Amino acid sequence: MIDPLAGEVARVTVRSHAGDYPVVIGSGLLDELPAALDGAVPGRRLAFVSDETVAGLHTERTLEACREAGLDARLFTFPAGEASKSRKSWSILTDEMLDAGYGRDSAVVAMGGGVTTDLGGFVAATYLRGVPVVQVPTTSLAMIDASVGGKTGVDVRAGKNLVGAFHAPALVLADSETLGTLDAELRAQGLVEAVKHGAIRDVEHLLAIEAGVDRLVDGEPSEWNEVVTRSVEIKADIVSRDEFEGGLRQVLNFGHTIGHALEAASEFALGHGSAVALGMLAEAEAGERLGVTEAGTRARLGALLDRLLPADLAVPSADAASDFLGQDKKAREGRARYVLLRRIGEVAEGDGWSHDLPDEVVLEVLKRAAT
Amino acid sequence: MIDPLAGEVARVTVRSHAGDYPVVIGSGLLDELPAALDGAVPGRRLAFVSDETVAGLHTERTLEACREAGLDARLFTFPAGEASKSRKSWSILTDEMLDAGYGRDSAVVAMGGGVTTDLGGFVAATYLRGVPVVQVPTTSLAMIDASVGGKTGVDVRAGKNLVGAFHAPALVLADSETLGTLDAELRAQGLVEAVKHGAIRDVEHLLAIEAGVDRLVDGEPSEWNEVVTRSVEIKADIVSRDEFEGGLRQVLNFGHTIGHALEAASEFALGHGSAVALGMLAEAEAGERLGVTEAGTRARLGALLDRLLPADLAVPSADAASDFLGQDKKAREGRARYVLLRRIGEVAEGDGWSHDLPDEVVLEVLKRAAT
Repeated sequence: MIDPLAGEVARVTVRSHAGDYPVVIGSGLLDELPAALDGAVPGRRLAFVSDETVAGLHTERTLEACREAGLDARLFTFPAGEASKSRKSWSILTDEMLDAGYGRDSAVVAMGGGVTTDLGGFVAATYLRGVPVVQVPTTSLAMIDASVGGKTGVDVRAGKNLVGAFHAPALVLADSETLGTLDAELRAQGLVEAVKHGAIRDVEHLLAIEAGVDRLVDGEPSEWNEVVTRSVEIKADIVSRDEFEGGLRQVLNFGHTIGHALEAASEFALGHGSAVALGMLAEAEAGERLGVTEAGTRARLGALLDRLLPADLAVPSADAASDFLGQDKKAREGRARYVLLRRIGEVAEGDGWSHDLPDEVVLEVLKRAAT
Repeated sequence: MIDPLAGEVARVTVRSHAGDYPVVIGSGLLDELPAALDGAVPGRRLAFVSDETVAGLHTERTLEACREAGLDARLFTFPAGEASKSRKSWSILTDEMLDAGYGRDSAVVAMGGGVTTDLGGFVAATYLRGVPVVQVPTTSLAMIDASVGGKTGVDVRAGKNLVGAFHAPALVLADSETLGTLDAELRAQGLVEAVKHGAIRDVEHLLAIEAGVDRLVDGEPSEWNEVVTRSVEIKADIVSRDEFEGGLRQVLNFGHTIGHALEAASEFALGHGSAVALGMLAEAEAGERLGVTEAGTRARLGALLDRLLPADLAVPSADAASDFLGQDKKAREGRARYVLLRRIGEVAEGDGWSHDLPDEVVLEVLKRAAT
């Protein structure tokens, strides 16, 4: 599958109880999708799921290539935006596929950003009790995070991602050229999760991002191939060892307990990347205050993350955010749990990879994040 | 867990990728639920899910016993009937649990008939991407079939059970005393699936049902313990070897391809047991016509099933039923697949445990079923 014109193609294997799957990363890979599907999915009927924006940019063209390769492919779209990551969109897409007669010998191809990979994945997870899904992420966030690891789901009134399923993909195909169609701010948002991967596991990865951040935000594809590949390697190693988040996988939650609370309290005016960036800074600071995290960790992360945050940040009040902490999915008996770093590249183990924090420390770091 | 007053307790283990689980069968077991939950589920927060009828008959009392044992248990109800096996009920139950603050350290206890075990199981499968479910079947159908094997789901416009997930329970507890609250017709409906288990796997099981049918329909608990246990053993053996219905598990579909079509064409006026009974007779006849099934098989099944069918049968026309065949979940490229017996106790292997049938044979046996 290596195309000399397209440059190197990287391949990372993720282990899953439902079967190992490859994540393939490179430039210009969308043209390779028909060939890559051969063997990855059992049937020849494909339901492409994309939002209306991505459909016009990438999906229709790829779908046409699949048809030319003799596959029975059809497009199912939904309106772009987080509001579509809903039980309603899931119902509509499912009913449309049922009406079109898709059986168990079909597969879903979810092509787009994190909304699409989560929503399309959940459609596949529950369609006739589960059909394969192929994830084709077209944003930096979806390539680095959402498309790998099998988490699927939708948002509900009580919060984001509260309804869903673990459904490992059959194949993930990340074409870095699609990042050229994003604006710089969106590219930067996705990079925040790569910073997280460096922070929890690999100081070299963080160094590479620090060195390349301007070219990455500018959208240089070759730079992205390396960052996406390393991030996927880190995430693949973790989720291969703990697919269902019984323990180790929780380290991927660094920055997310406070990040999710800030996001919810802002009524999602704050982007996911920005929220996680602020969450990492707050959780690094909490760790430093408690003597768990090496001094200076917050400052180093801050220097890098400041370059990724947009100028206008819709940060909610600390009180508003703290109200959402007890509702976190990983809360135990109503108390939120926090992943703390020991230092850059290493998580402090705690009790099952997470920690309880004193309420006053949480409120202090939330107040600092909110300013 | 054996209580001398309650008689013997049977225990069948089912293998699952998510962990093996026990099915416990006996008389008076509901009182044992608090003890049985200890160790079976990780947390102490329980969401009981029941329809309003079963809630009053069994659940409230059991929930009270759980509370006395120090468990944090609360009841979530929905209106009785197949119409509740819907995405709407699933959404409402999920939102109620979220509003009540149930976290990942909770478990769902689905107590009731097949609607409840399927619906409650699907709530658990998708709640925060999956929490454990304990199945407590209170009908013969749910004990013999629906509660074992991990199939969960809801009905949608296009058909029954078309949206759902495989979600193996943590524990199944079947108290045969609950069958005393059913009317005889409902008890008979559940027995049809036990006849199926005998037909596909175990002639001795069929002989036992033939010998005990009157006492079973009358509701004699000790008779039921044996039949439920043997049926669960047969089903457990099959689903332990093919959890996700890749091959062998399809044998459990004997009678169901035509059964589901009859059920759908009758707009569900025909009960599931009656539909499967007619489906088994039609599929046995088709097998005999094609020389796959031993002559006399249909006649023998018919003699037994006639005693289980209600006097008034809302059988749809053959044409109406045949329209639904291509929409079957196990259809391949739009063509329905059929499980055929070689003889009582043995399935004819076919192509992956199912067969294509000539359209004219299907129409002929449908016409006979419809009269």
